[in-house]
Amino acid sequence: MINVSVLGYGTIGSGVVEVINTNNKKLKETSGEEIKVKYVLDLREFEGNPVQKILVHDYSIIANDPEVDIVVEAMGGVHPAYDFVKEALEKGKSVCTSNKELVAAHGAELLEVAKAHNVNFFFEASVGGGIPIIRPLNECITADEIEEITGILNGTTNYILTKMSKEGAGFEETLKDAQDKGYAERNPEADVEGHDACRKIAILTSLACGKQVNYEDIYTEGITKISDVDFKYAGSIGASVKLFGTSKKVGDEIYAMVSPVMINETNPLYSVSDVFNAVLVKGNMLGNTMFYGAGAGKLPTASAVVSDVVQAVRHAGETVETRWSKEPVKLGEMGQLVNRFFVRVAEGDKAKAQSLFANATEVKADVAGEYAFITEAMKEEEFSKKAEEINVINRIRVAF
Amino acid sequence: MINVSVLGYGTIGSGVVEVINTNNKKLKETSGEEIKVKYVLDLREFEGNPVQKILVHDYSIIANDPEVDIVVEAMGGVHPAYDFVKEALEKGKSVCTSNKELVAAHGAELLEVAKAHNVNFFFEASVGGGIPIIRPLNECITADEIEEITGILNGTTNYILTKMSKEGAGFEETLKDAQDKGYAERNPEADVEGHDACRKIAILTSLACGKQVNYEDIYTEGITKISDVDFKYAGSIGASVKLFGTSKKVGDEIYAMVSPVMINETNPLYSVSDVFNAVLVKGNMLGNTMFYGAGAGKLPTASAVVSDVVQAVRHAGETVETRWSKEPVKLGEMGQLVNRFFVRVAEGDKAKAQSLFANATEVKADVAGEYAFITEAMKEEEFSKKAEEINVINRIRVAF
Repeated sequence: MINVSVLGYGTIGSGVVEVINTNNKKLKETSGEEIKVKYVLDLREFEGNPVQKILVHDYSIIANDPEVDIVVEAMGGVHPAYDFVKEALEKGKSVCTSNKELVAAHGAELLEVAKAHNVNFFFEASVGGGIPIIRPLNECITADEIEEITGILNGTTNYILTKMSKEGAGFEETLKDAQDKGYAERNPEADVEGHDACRKIAILTSLACGKQVNYEDIYTEGITKISDVDFKYAGSIGASVKLFGTSKKVGDEIYAMVSPVMINETNPLYSVSDVFNAVLVKGNMLGNTMFYGAGAGKLPTASAVVSDVVQAVRHAGETVETRWSKEPVKLGEMGQLVNRFFVRVAEGDKAKAQSLFANATEVKADVAGEYAFITEAMKEEEFSKKAEEINVINRIRVAF
Repeated sequence: MINVSVLGYGTIGSGVVEVINTNNKKLKETSGEEIKVKYVLDLREFEGNPVQKILVHDYSIIANDPEVDIVVEAMGGVHPAYDFVKEALEKGKSVCTSNKELVAAHGAELLEVAKAHNVNFFFEASVGGGIPIIRPLNECITADEIEEITGILNGTTNYILTKMSKEGAGFEETLKDAQDKGYAERNPEADVEGHDACRKIAILTSLACGKQVNYEDIYTEGITKISDVDFKYAGSIGASVKLFGTSKKVGDEIYAMVSPVMINETNPLYSVSDVFNAVLVKGNMLGNTMFYGAGAGKLPTASAVVSDVVQAVRHAGETVETRWSKEPVKLGEMGQLVNRFFVRVAEGDKAKAQSLFANATEVKADVAGEYAFITEAMKEEEFSKKAEEINVINRIRVAF
């Protein structure tokens, strides 16, 4: 019998309890043990809910109960999650978490603590919700130099961009629709400004290179400037706009970025729509491999957390090696990265734009008073310098 | 230092040597050991090729060398691969293989032998080439009841069907083109008749249910009857035809099948084109997750084999549990499976077809002298019985 305690009874925490209860027989088959939820920690009361019987308000009850083998952290945020997780590991309990803020900020350190105490710190659900991507990176794509990881890592923004693309609607009204449907938070900043995707690409890049990529160092641009007019142009050339979290290894440098990118159907991520997520991993031997599925949602995310619980049971008494040291990575300068850019300027700037950007390709759409084009590949710093000389209405990186 | 020996210096075997040599530094980082190829077994001579220095013609040299830690089997076919692999495991060497015939026929047994000798039998590359799918099924999707696995598991047939769909070409001429390009064998039967996909879905289904699914029990239908006319109809309703290997759990019954299926863009597998493969796994909590990538090819497949070598190094001295016992699964009767069918009959059979198949939807295309329709969902046996009463030109299962 394995006793699990769940910290936080919100969307993910209640999902974890539901998955453990619903699939209990299956979990016994895959883990070899009966898995039971002994405590749920939450400050709220949940009157009349069956969870009341196992509800505690004081974390020390869980931390100090030697019968608790595994702690599931589903509180979100860095504090007090960090302190609770660290204490659990130090007390010989494995921890499984869906908390990307915690993992991005303290992943390497908590892996070290886990190793020192012969337990495991697993975080499959912290990136891509239900999609297996952390364990495949750590245990499957191990024979390749990873040249690039590019993901649609945030379901909220993908829902908004998909709807704008299909319906020609503007950003603000689509955001409101997403909020009404419960796909976006009332305070949508973490999603639409790219902060959520930023933490996720920081985690994936750290795992790919085995060192610490600080999310604060990653250039991050959200989707708030993307308009229905941009999609008009994109549609005219069979393209769409997605929010990518991406990192590339160029020579010895690692570049990482979160930004809207214009792609067309030659990109496997093109058909990833609505709230779905996907991660494309490019290896020097493997080529492109893509992992696709539900990037968020109660049960898919909880399923990933509980699969970590199964691995923690299977590996009781030993630490599964995860290549992610605290040694910091100095990311390459964004200005040196080479990209193509889709650019919109006022009609009056057309001649100047044409002289500044040689070999640009005009993009035509039914938009009055503008001139739009896609540049040739150039360094970000070169583009920025040239773009300062004209009145740019909007510009979006292009990946074709 | 870990000594690997490679059995067979064909496409995959030479790829394994290339990956180990090219990514040697990376392998040391991920496995913690220097990995070296000590022997290559092949009956041929390879005059002037650097492999000559480590080439042996006699397997007993490898089997009896206590310095050989890991054997890579890349010979293909069941014999003598089976005997060589079994002997290696019995002599305390882990084995990594890309050989789907061997794994489908003897996987459960070889896993048992490996366990008895405290070593590992890994076969990530046996399904989906470079795509991680075996390890994710075994170690990631462990909290779910797996309700369905559906894959585009054969690159040759997917290349042919994609080309027929895009260019309106017939089967025979497209097969010839695929042969000329090296995507199809001179004797294409194993691919175009579905035998290759059959072994792969047998392996995946065995892993999903933890028991032995015999590939001989799986209903298997290839793509040789699919014509340009079928694609004309499919195109008229925004659909395409793919060769699926699929298994479903319905109640307590498991159904498995290889067959062409008509799908539209609502299916994540719709955009999987050319020689790419993909596997969709549906869990009762997780929903749909898809794994996509290069399903064949020298380096992608070799990359998967070498990732198994890394895992074998990491788990030296212990057996990673793989849920696949020898207990046989009795598959559900195909006749009981419920499907919709796309059906083409001669114009003269229209009235009869309409009276036999109530609630059918006509499919219109620019084809003379025919009547085509899609039936409502019905049991396979009910469809077969009705179809006997008319002159069916072709019929294809429909998954939308």
